[in-house]
Amino acid sequence: MLLCFDDEKAIAQRAADAGGLALAVIERHRFPDGELRLRLPDPLPTHVVLWRGLHQPNEKLVELLLAARTARQLGARHLSLVTPYLAYMRQDIAFNPGEAVSQRIVGAFLAELFDAVITVDPHLHRVATLEEAIPVRDAIVLSGAPLLADHIATQRHGVLLIGPDEESAQWVAQAAQRHGWTSAVCRKTRHGDRAVDIELPDLLIAGRAVVLMDDVASSGHTVAQAARALLRAGAASVDVAVTHALFAAGAIDLLRQAGVGQVWSTDAIPHVSNAVSIVPAVVQALHTLRTR
Amino acid sequence: MLLCFDDEKAIAQRAADAGGLALAVIERHRFPDGELRLRLPDPLPTHVVLWRGLHQPNEKLVELLLAARTARQLGARHLSLVTPYLAYMRQDIAFNPGEAVSQRIVGAFLAELFDAVITVDPHLHRVATLEEAIPVRDAIVLSGAPLLADHIATQRHGVLLIGPDEESAQWVAQAAQRHGWTSAVCRKTRHGDRAVDIELPDLLIAGRAVVLMDDVASSGHTVAQAARALLRAGAASVDVAVTHALFAAGAIDLLRQAGVGQVWSTDAIPHVSNAVSIVPAVVQALHTLRTR
Repeated sequence: MLLCFDDEKAIAQRAADAGGLALAVIERHRFPDGELRLRLPDPLPTHVVLWRGLHQPNEKLVELLLAARTARQLGARHLSLVTPYLAYMRQDIAFNPGEAVSQRIVGAFLAELFDAVITVDPHLHRVATLEEAIPVRDAIVLSGAPLLADHIATQRHGVLLIGPDEESAQWVAQAAQRHGWTSAVCRKTRHGDRAVDIELPDLLIAGRAVVLMDDVASSGHTVAQAARALLRAGAASVDVAVTHALFAAGAIDLLRQAGVGQVWSTDAIPHVSNAVSIVPAVVQALHTLRTR
Repeated sequence: MLLCFDDEKAIAQRAADAGGLALAVIERHRFPDGELRLRLPDPLPTHVVLWRGLHQPNEKLVELLLAARTARQLGARHLSLVTPYLAYMRQDIAFNPGEAVSQRIVGAFLAELFDAVITVDPHLHRVATLEEAIPVRDAIVLSGAPLLADHIATQRHGVLLIGPDEESAQWVAQAAQRHGWTSAVCRKTRHGDRAVDIELPDLLIAGRAVVLMDDVASSGHTVAQAARALLRAGAASVDVAVTHALFAAGAIDLLRQAGVGQVWSTDAIPHVSNAVSIVPAVVQALHTLRTR
């Protein structure tokens, strides 16, 4: 059985249909004092999958705590989390003394609740595998990069694929190789949440159909700054492809003002820019889990 | 050492001063995507107390997870939580099949993070002790009722102390006994978050200085309805005393419109109605913990 919350029913329904799973929406009531009351189907089957994307994560982490513990009470023996966007993966060391290493803390919290975690392009930097961050029995990482690359290939010819910073190299290289495109990454220096410097790679950009690709775009400042630099360098067009359309309010406007043409994303986070779906890959991963 | 967050620095400072503890404010940064970055003093002493009221609890529960796990990393061996308002204590059974028993789930979550919990008037109904809800080594329950009663005694003579529902009997009886007042409780039937029926106790109300006392007031609907009924029955005045001023927006106006005179609360939740302080009782409890 696949469980979800009402705000993600549409995508969870598509996954349930494609995977031949029954879908149930967890009833959720919010009291005036901010407390939640959840109600799950009773009883539950032995194998239960919970669908929950973790953008704007804190409220949802408490939902997961309540839902997972209750699912165990109601009969779930094997509990998987499908979280197309996984939060708190960036703080993987204490950058300053005394800082919470939230990746490890949230990872251990999820590993106590679930037997398996399936996610898409988690923002892992200094750790090599998802199991290091979330020590569950089965940790499956899917990638939006090949899905986005295949979509880009139907929209643009002779693509120059650029990552806005060094961390994007893993996704950019993978996507470029799939279609024989040239690729490179910019150098980014961050001065605050919304202040970055971008240095373009040493490539001929003039006249090229550039696509900026990254795992996630949030404020849009990094991508907008890269787009402006690329257009100044003579790019024929600059489009944007991201796995996670985390876009804050005003981010898309910022990209348009910077001269960005199209914005394509996967539906790992629901957004108007969604152009390709992660659902088939998730269904395949759930099938892999069942047959392990 | 006493740790707190910036929004509770004033009350935590008073507790630290009264208890002879060093105070440190946990640095908290909220990223645009909703994630938190916390920074604690490094290193921490062996004994650490964290001050965190849990009204509007979900975001704060994630803060507690990050802060407590990090405190252990930084050297805290004995970690106490002072939570003047403790959330999620009301859902202590599944009222309908499949409901999350959030009291037990949140209680176990807190017990994994802390060695001791100090709180004020937790809303326990079908469980007898706080340890049942939060299985920590030391669970200390303080009460706002005697503090409020002593304040009422300076403001009103010949008080008739009334609880708005049966659940308030424990606090009302304790407070009335302290000053030799008559007390009783109403009968409440709830039809929804904001819809209740109130039946007055069978007592002579005409001409009396009535004080409505409860552990918590949220929307204010229950207390307002009781106040209207008491005034219709001829009460000379109706004032309100609550431990936890959880009051939602508009709740105080609702009480005024119902004819309520004064509203008195403890500072377990910061509010304009705060008339008495829980700080001395908390400091005493911390002293008890240290000498156990």
